[in-house]
Amino acid sequence: MDLNSLIRDVENFPKEGILFKDITPLLLDAKGLQESIDKMAEEVQDVDFDIVIGPESRGFIFGVPLAYKLQKGFVPVRKPGKLPYKTIGQSYDLEYGSNTIEMHIDAIKPGQKVIIVDDLLATGGTTKAIVDLIEKLGGEVVKIVYLIELEGLNGREILKGQNIVSLLKY
Amino acid sequence: MDLNSLIRDVENFPKEGILFKDITPLLLDAKGLQESIDKMAEEVQDVDFDIVIGPESRGFIFGVPLAYKLQKGFVPVRKPGKLPYKTIGQSYDLEYGSNTIEMHIDAIKPGQKVIIVDDLLATGGTTKAIVDLIEKLGGEVVKIVYLIELEGLNGREILKGQNIVSLLKY
Repeated sequence: MDLNSLIRDVENFPKEGILFKDITPLLLDAKGLQESIDKMAEEVQDVDFDIVIGPESRGFIFGVPLAYKLQKGFVPVRKPGKLPYKTIGQSYDLEYGSNTIEMHIDAIKPGQKVIIVDDLLATGGTTKAIVDLIEKLGGEVVKIVYLIELEGLNGREILKGQNIVSLLKY
Repeated sequence: MDLNSLIRDVENFPKEGILFKDITPLLLDAKGLQESIDKMAEEVQDVDFDIVIGPESRGFIFGVPLAYKLQKGFVPVRKPGKLPYKTIGQSYDLEYGSNTIEMHIDAIKPGQKVIIVDDLLATGGTTKAIVDLIEKLGGEVVKIVYLIELEGLNGREILKGQNIVSLLKY
């Protein structure tokens, strides 16, 4: 199956000049959803890990079914103020301004091996902040899986040293 | 397995006087995550349906793995401005102010049967808005599945006539 045919290009979203990769046709297609999760699972089948982590909210879309399929637990990374228990946060720079993400302090135990899942690798800023949070808690990132990678934005640079895979590249 | 033991009570979140049901310990527990999705699947095994719908962002956590397990497509319902393609919206009242949610106009075809999945039934306002959106597009809601129902908030009242099930009741 050609997963690429289920990605819709939307022009000028979220702002003028951006060509947005819309994943909703893939999610709507039962076989497309099935195959994208199954392919992600194949990419980590030989990896020894304890936990799947994904950021709000499109990281939940791929991270939770992957955790379910592989019979692992899932840790949500969220925007500030969304997680109810004690959190640690990590800020990172955007083109204009900055963002902060949070994780529960009991989400990862020291020494645990973690896979990060998200829909899109763009500049890599969000993923780098997640890596930092995981390492603050003593965890180790063993692989990072994306549905889509925008190669022109060179997100692998900031994530140097990480084991990264993406199902679709543009 | 006692799923209830994996729900953590957090006092005074998101505001003073609220006892919040934290689902992150359940997600973190591989068996807890597995069993919650499997039990949701059991609840809809005799239901004829085409699509699973879930709202941003905790509805994604349970809706997508359920769609994956049952080999159906998934439709995300999101906050305004988050979906890239043409949308329809629905507003609903909150205790103070109002909220709007959106869905892509091509998410559901007339006559399709839809299951709504979310983590929590509280007042039912969000779910009622999702039902309205689905019906605007000509779809039919055949079942609504929650992980948790807060019975004291009487959310079933506003959803009268719907087939509702929840795995945990408080």
